[in-house]
Amino acid sequence: MIKTPYLLFLGDAPDQLAAKVAQGIRDWRPDISIGQIKLPGCKADLNLKNYTLEEAKENGAKTLIIGVANRGGKFSDSWKKTLCHALELKFDIASGLHNLLSNEKDLLNLSEVNECNLIDVRIPKEQFPIGNGKKRTGKRCLTIGTDCSVGKMYSSLAIEKEMRSREMKVSFRATGQTGILISGRGIPLDAIVADFMAGSVETLSPDNDDDHWDIIEGQGSLFHVSYSGVTMALIHGGQPDHIILCHEPTRAHMRGLPHYDLPTLEALYEIALPLAKISNPNCKISGICINTKNMERLEGENLKNQIEQAFKLPTVDPFIDGTKKIVDRLIQE
Amino acid sequence: MIKTPYLLFLGDAPDQLAAKVAQGIRDWRPDISIGQIKLPGCKADLNLKNYTLEEAKENGAKTLIIGVANRGGKFSDSWKKTLCHALELKFDIASGLHNLLSNEKDLLNLSEVNECNLIDVRIPKEQFPIGNGKKRTGKRCLTIGTDCSVGKMYSSLAIEKEMRSREMKVSFRATGQTGILISGRGIPLDAIVADFMAGSVETLSPDNDDDHWDIIEGQGSLFHVSYSGVTMALIHGGQPDHIILCHEPTRAHMRGLPHYDLPTLEALYEIALPLAKISNPNCKISGICINTKNMERLEGENLKNQIEQAFKLPTVDPFIDGTKKIVDRLIQE
Repeated sequence: MIKTPYLLFLGDAPDQLAAKVAQGIRDWRPDISIGQIKLPGCKADLNLKNYTLEEAKENGAKTLIIGVANRGGKFSDSWKKTLCHALELKFDIASGLHNLLSNEKDLLNLSEVNECNLIDVRIPKEQFPIGNGKKRTGKRCLTIGTDCSVGKMYSSLAIEKEMRSREMKVSFRATGQTGILISGRGIPLDAIVADFMAGSVETLSPDNDDDHWDIIEGQGSLFHVSYSGVTMALIHGGQPDHIILCHEPTRAHMRGLPHYDLPTLEALYEIALPLAKISNPNCKISGICINTKNMERLEGENLKNQIEQAFKLPTVDPFIDGTKKIVDRLIQE
Repeated sequence: MIKTPYLLFLGDAPDQLAAKVAQGIRDWRPDISIGQIKLPGCKADLNLKNYTLEEAKENGAKTLIIGVANRGGKFSDSWKKTLCHALELKFDIASGLHNLLSNEKDLLNLSEVNECNLIDVRIPKEQFPIGNGKKRTGKRCLTIGTDCSVGKMYSSLAIEKEMRSREMKVSFRATGQTGILISGRGIPLDAIVADFMAGSVETLSPDNDDDHWDIIEGQGSLFHVSYSGVTMALIHGGQPDHIILCHEPTRAHMRGLPHYDLPTLEALYEIALPLAKISNPNCKISGICINTKNMERLEGENLKNQIEQAFKLPTVDPFIDGTKKIVDRLIQE
């Protein structure tokens, strides 16, 4: 559990995209994002108060979040100075970067001296059990995609937000780095040893109240041959009651695999449902999220209508439409 | 690559079953199994020459293989004495046990002093890439099962043996501890980090001659919710041209999961083939191995005939019938 509230570190981000982790946290958790801190040359902005470390501390910030990708996988001297000073002020620091905070000796020493935490969310902190497949109480909804990076995390968070607005009991269950930083907890599933993948998902989504919903963030795709095993473990460890299909219609090929075409939503439906029924015979596919950001508005609307009619399932672009229609369906069944 | 020939260590095995790893090596690799070494009280026997360490060394043995499960996960003093002496004589030692040779300080020290290797085959030794899904040259055949421990390794080795007897180019590709000790190489797939599972299988089964066969040892089952992600990675990383289904018809429930029924062979066929076609559109299911050891002979024969007719696929118990019929089918297509 990462301590809140957060101060979001944007470093010397060359553009807005480089700060997309910070942007995600700011979009989904405005209540815990109390300010931003930039270095000279930073081209990103979150429309938050600019704080010095001292000001943020005075305003209650507990954790400095590295909200920006670093260049060349190195912590530059300009970053180091700020990070070291944050530790001197007893901030925790959390990061989802590939190169780890805890591999930097100066940061490690300062964190020990000042009794604060370096949190590398790419590294699993627990030893997980082997999955036992036992039926758990509470409701579970999992997002799965035709490909990687089609909007599974966004869709999951949008469903959580809609449920929260209805005062339903709901938890977003993060399975990737950005999701963990946004929600302050979760499991970096792609870093778990194979034997314990399903067990880690069971741990992430334990028994709960009958009217509580876990919205589990999907990873990879059954059709993405590099990561399909991770997706499979999520389906069987998550034992979802409901699956939401996620799709980006304009993509030319599977992400990072130019020799693989994207599957159709029909193909994903046909292959995913029998697999999901192994761990939960009552599992249903209950909605479709279409990421239309690369389409003309009208084209996107037409496509969503076509899909909705073909599948008889609520179909939305969660960014444009929200997820009301999907949540209506989830609570109906 | 584990150095051969082997001296097989049976320790103080309380019964034959406790030495099943050694038995597997002796059955499948008699050419490299030059002798056995027992401690007082050992109840297992491989029908091999009993050697002292010195005699085995004189006869050319290079590696002492721990062929027996230890009790309570500990190396007893009686074992330790033999293992230490083996290192003094410059044997390598290889083990598939959960508790690691390399965690024993005395063994580690002696291996360094004597410049020999402690090989814990449960621990991956390489850093593997993320799978790229590129089509590789050569032929690949993968065994998959309705459950864990239904005979996938045995079936794979039996196919390799039959192909070898026909002087075909063939490699058994081990993905588990026992398979690695038998073949002297391989990848402990269940110990690989999730993101790299498919890539490790690609590494295990690289480009090869067009008429070369990789017989890839299956793991877990698509229907075993604890390990299905591992199976999925094997299917997509292995990109098999042919799949052999493996089944044990008398099992009452999934191994270790009393609340899960076994799937039918039909269900496995239906779910596995579309998944396999994602990475290899030409993949076929080409044979069925039935483990009939818990059945009456006639009952087993009848069942194999029924299955053969229902699926129109060569169906054998590899232990009783060998795999001639299956290899005939593989080379026909």
